[in-house]
Amino acid sequence: MRVVTKIVPRYQETDKMGVIHHSVYPVWYECGRGDFCRALGMPFPEIEKRGLAQALVELNVRYHRPAYYGDELELVTRLTGMTGVRLIFTYELRNQNGELVNSGQTTLAWLDDKLRPLNIKKRHPDIYGLLLAAIDAGCE
Amino acid sequence: MRVVTKIVPRYQETDKMGVIHHSVYPVWYECGRGDFCRALGMPFPEIEKRGLAQALVELNVRYHRPAYYGDELELVTRLTGMTGVRLIFTYELRNQNGELVNSGQTTLAWLDDKLRPLNIKKRHPDIYGLLLAAIDAGCE
Amino acid sequence: MRVVTKIVPRYQETDKMGVIHHSVYPVWYECGRGDFCRALGMPFPEIEKRGLAQALVELNVRYHRPAYYGDELELVTRLTGMTGVRLIFTYELRNQNGELVNSGQTTLAWLDDKLRPLNIKKRHPDIYGLLLAAIDAGCE
Amino acid sequence: MRVVTKIVPRYQETDKMGVIHHSVYPVWYECGRGDFCRALGMPFPEIEKRGLAQALVELNVRYHRPAYYGDELELVTRLTGMTGVRLIFTYELRNQNGELVNSGQTTLAWLDDKLRPLNIKKRHPDIYGLLLAAIDAGCE
Repeated sequence: MRVVTKIVPRYQETDKMGVIHHSVYPVWYECGRGDFCRALGMPFPEIEKRGLAQALVELNVRYHRPAYYGDELELVTRLTGMTGVRLIFTYELRNQNGELVNSGQTTLAWLDDKLRPLNIKKRHPDIYGLLLAAIDAGCE
Repeated sequence: MRVVTKIVPRYQETDKMGVIHHSVYPVWYECGRGDFCRALGMPFPEIEKRGLAQALVELNVRYHRPAYYGDELELVTRLTGMTGVRLIFTYELRNQNGELVNSGQTTLAWLDDKLRPLNIKKRHPDIYGLLLAAIDAGCE
Repeated sequence: MRVVTKIVPRYQETDKMGVIHHSVYPVWYECGRGDFCRALGMPFPEIEKRGLAQALVELNVRYHRPAYYGDELELVTRLTGMTGVRLIFTYELRNQNGELVNSGQTTLAWLDDKLRPLNIKKRHPDIYGLLLAAIDAGCE
Repeated sequence: MRVVTKIVPRYQETDKMGVIHHSVYPVWYECGRGDFCRALGMPFPEIEKRGLAQALVELNVRYHRPAYYGDELELVTRLTGMTGVRLIFTYELRNQNGELVNSGQTTLAWLDDKLRPLNIKKRHPDIYGLLLAAIDAGCE
């Protein structure tokens, strides 16, 4: 599954170099991840109601070219790997000219509501199954 | 009581006009408020352990001159008014030349841990007393 | 003119009280202001190309009820006052139940590209005229 | 050279999981990088006056354990690699108990004031020399 999120840069997200500040991309990734889970019928608030949380354990970002205020960006979010305890999402952000602006990957761990590690495959096989069906195989 | 917080602007806090973005000042006020409560022996985590929270109900900010990356700023935080259910903090931010950069005021309401309004004078008279002694009378 | 901006709260915008942090609302106002100027045919990048900037001189925010992750909010932005050197925008934010979450007002000053004050009425009467026609009279 | 930056988490930096949001760490890294360059006698504003800029091309972050509001953190910033066109900084963040909270690495490219790539070794050998002397060899 590929989920597309439209991103309109905010003026507050610019910095004095005149471009979108590098710390904003992980926030946009999180928006993409939220849209992905929503598209899967499992929005974050639903996940939390079931006593679950996802915490970042690793973040990797590559900056290919700057994004600017006034751009109209498209973020593609895919689930590219998972185990019972981990999820890997991969992101690609392109501008209105189709140019690759930014790409990245996040690894998340499943936690319970006390923020303790948890195996989703064992404890919530329905969620595990939903995600498994959404993996975008054959990509990096 | 006047509590002074040293503020070093972050590069991320600048915008494409080359100045500190206007949405950052309320975050700095919150740092000042945190230092104020800490100086009073009542840091935020302590307040939360007692089942209390403070929520903003009103924010007023005046922008006198820009702040820049590289500035060394000083924020003065004072408690300038209160009732059993409300607190008013007043802020003044000056730069390394002593110039007034920004001033503002926040009104906060006391809440319990379910985010319901609460009268601190009735329920936690010790905290009320601490704060009462710290009011900076005779200012605006 | 009333411009409506759809706001989807980001997870990053929440705080440990479980609500949207109070410093986020001025950022949303700026989004509303951007949409307003775009709707008027005068988007921020266009304004900058003409050597103009708008700087906040005053910000007033009232917090009526919390906003939450998962909410679907609507921000209404109106231009409610202006002179040759100042603009006043007024904002109202409502949630999916039609409840007023937040309201506020910003006063902006026109600057040139050296960040010096400027009278738009004298220097750019076409922009002044556009804005004048968009004022939402008869409100607060 | 190892530069230590004291980090006091801000309430605004927490999220509804009750921990510091993952997007904040790159902002703290930037503070560490600023302190590093300042300690080297080459603060960011000085770099900019010489018509230079540094842009992130890669960011890698590992989240070892959560940071909380109320923590007192120490960030160690080191320059661990460089060429004429790239700089690699490595970061380690520990809490008041000496526990590793977060570690990461950023790769930056030198740009001129038009944001075009530039070889610092050729164009500004004095800055290149300063940095070369500050490399922390023998680490990861």
